[in-house]
Amino acid sequence: MEMEKNVQILLASRPDGYPKESDFQVIESEIPKPLEGEVLIKVLWLSLDPYMRGRMRDEESYATPVAIGDVIVGGAVGVVVNSRTPALKPGDYVEGNLGWQSYAVSDPRFLRVVDPSIAPVNTALGVLGMPSMTAYFGLLDVGKPSPGETVVVSAASGAVGQIVGQIAKIMGCRVVGIVGSENKKSYIIDDLGFDYAINYKTSNMYEELQIACPDGIDVYFDNVGGTITDFVLEQINVGARISVCGQISQYNLQKPELAKRNMWILIRKQAVMQGFLVFQFANRHEEARKRIANWIDEGKIKYKEDVVDSLENAPKAFIGMFYGENFGKLLVRVSE
Amino acid sequence: MEMEKNVQILLASRPDGYPKESDFQVIESEIPKPLEGEVLIKVLWLSLDPYMRGRMRDEESYATPVAIGDVIVGGAVGVVVNSRTPALKPGDYVEGNLGWQSYAVSDPRFLRVVDPSIAPVNTALGVLGMPSMTAYFGLLDVGKPSPGETVVVSAASGAVGQIVGQIAKIMGCRVVGIVGSENKKSYIIDDLGFDYAINYKTSNMYEELQIACPDGIDVYFDNVGGTITDFVLEQINVGARISVCGQISQYNLQKPELAKRNMWILIRKQAVMQGFLVFQFANRHEEARKRIANWIDEGKIKYKEDVVDSLENAPKAFIGMFYGENFGKLLVRVSE
Repeated sequence: MEMEKNVQILLASRPDGYPKESDFQVIESEIPKPLEGEVLIKVLWLSLDPYMRGRMRDEESYATPVAIGDVIVGGAVGVVVNSRTPALKPGDYVEGNLGWQSYAVSDPRFLRVVDPSIAPVNTALGVLGMPSMTAYFGLLDVGKPSPGETVVVSAASGAVGQIVGQIAKIMGCRVVGIVGSENKKSYIIDDLGFDYAINYKTSNMYEELQIACPDGIDVYFDNVGGTITDFVLEQINVGARISVCGQISQYNLQKPELAKRNMWILIRKQAVMQGFLVFQFANRHEEARKRIANWIDEGKIKYKEDVVDSLENAPKAFIGMFYGENFGKLLVRVSE
Repeated sequence: MEMEKNVQILLASRPDGYPKESDFQVIESEIPKPLEGEVLIKVLWLSLDPYMRGRMRDEESYATPVAIGDVIVGGAVGVVVNSRTPALKPGDYVEGNLGWQSYAVSDPRFLRVVDPSIAPVNTALGVLGMPSMTAYFGLLDVGKPSPGETVVVSAASGAVGQIVGQIAKIMGCRVVGIVGSENKKSYIIDDLGFDYAINYKTSNMYEELQIACPDGIDVYFDNVGGTITDFVLEQINVGARISVCGQISQYNLQKPELAKRNMWILIRKQAVMQGFLVFQFANRHEEARKRIANWIDEGKIKYKEDVVDSLENAPKAFIGMFYGENFGKLLVRVSE
């Protein structure tokens, strides 16, 4: 009988512009052995998120870049199969930065235990995980919406955007989502209850935003940057808050895009533009997770996952994300 | 004996790029007569400020633009010479938006009484007026500096910048000023007590900022925008606050300057960029005026005025401001 191997996906080369499949290398290696105090985890689900593109750059950012030849970083959920620590036992489900691989060794201090009785464990990477924490704090703590205000969110059917819009509805706001297809448009209106949806690929953004936001824009949750954001900024109200979460339109540019400067708009509108990272709210993640779990129970928050089977397909799915091909939170089912 | 006339400066044409003297027209008209409830004011001092350039544009901003043929707007201090209201009497000193003219009629509700026993009345336009209110709230409420932090201010010897830097020193910060001449550099170091000064016209900004701010930049009070601001943003710390007060480098551009987008920096640094207008803090101006008056009494705040004689010279002085020719708060002495 052939021994099971660890499938790993390495960064083969730094992407120049949009990542290509040749920037990734799939290898098989021995399943690692945990040292004293560590656990061996069989990975079940891998999360694919836009931030990973930043880690593929050879540039210090808020985190260290992935080295060429290293396993790509990524949040994952798995099950403990071998434990050399009393902190965890085989069969425990855990979430952590396990990387793009089918087995991982970790210190339990870097893991969060996931209770499979509350929800399917894959939700620990989506609606009960980092994307929802990002949506929750970026909207409530940074965007600070009040009832009756108009909230615009870009990439509105994505892992973060879909939660932003639904929390904004719970807060009593008018919610406008910007998406890239007619399917996504129907989804956020019909399934999620957004008030208005704009397909940026087929719309006159200036006119559509005017129709969508007759009272102007009070909060903009920005996942994309670029020209979509330029259009939104033109229509913000006095006192608007811009919550800067992501700039996916800029991540794959080979050279920086030049644009009109926008700081004058902030003066004229006495507006605030604030960047944030989900980690800065780490001590309040449990609070957010509980509230979101309650909203799901009450039927106030729905979510959509886009599941890709098999780790070998992760590069292709990851690349597709930058072309807007995913629909909902992108997950790879690594093992059954 | 010739009757005294009202000298007025009108907007003759909308400046295209930097304003030219031909954009202004000096006329003489009859001295206006106050209606019931109004006062006639003889203007003593006119304030020249960068914001006026914005009012010369044919574009709604936070305030209505000046029409062609209208008297240009501007804060001024004068003395009541004729009163048809019990609220004010001849000899009272007042401050308000009296415009570029030697006599003005106003409703007392739009005027603030100035007490000449506290300080020379011209200070009502500078260190005890709008520029200092701008500095106070823009630094303390928007920039929120803490002791030990590094504060950078651009246009640091100007009406607003000089006060920003001195308040930041009072707050226990390391203060770095960016100016456009060696004289201004000496002034902010030797007279005002800034810790470091950079002449942007003769420096490698990137290197100088590194030397000036060995611990990075926590607060940036931005009066200028443009490439100076780009350099500063590259060196902000995690949690930095950018107080966006003015963008003088951009006011006279014939077409918008294109630049690299900077929103990604805000995410990486979890930073806040906030625009403001001094009016939004109007209900707290008296609080600020008292504190600043105390600091002046205690010798903790000094100020420099650049006085131009005669209203006819206002256009030339105003134009010079955009070339950095003024040194300190720019005032026109309209009448003795």
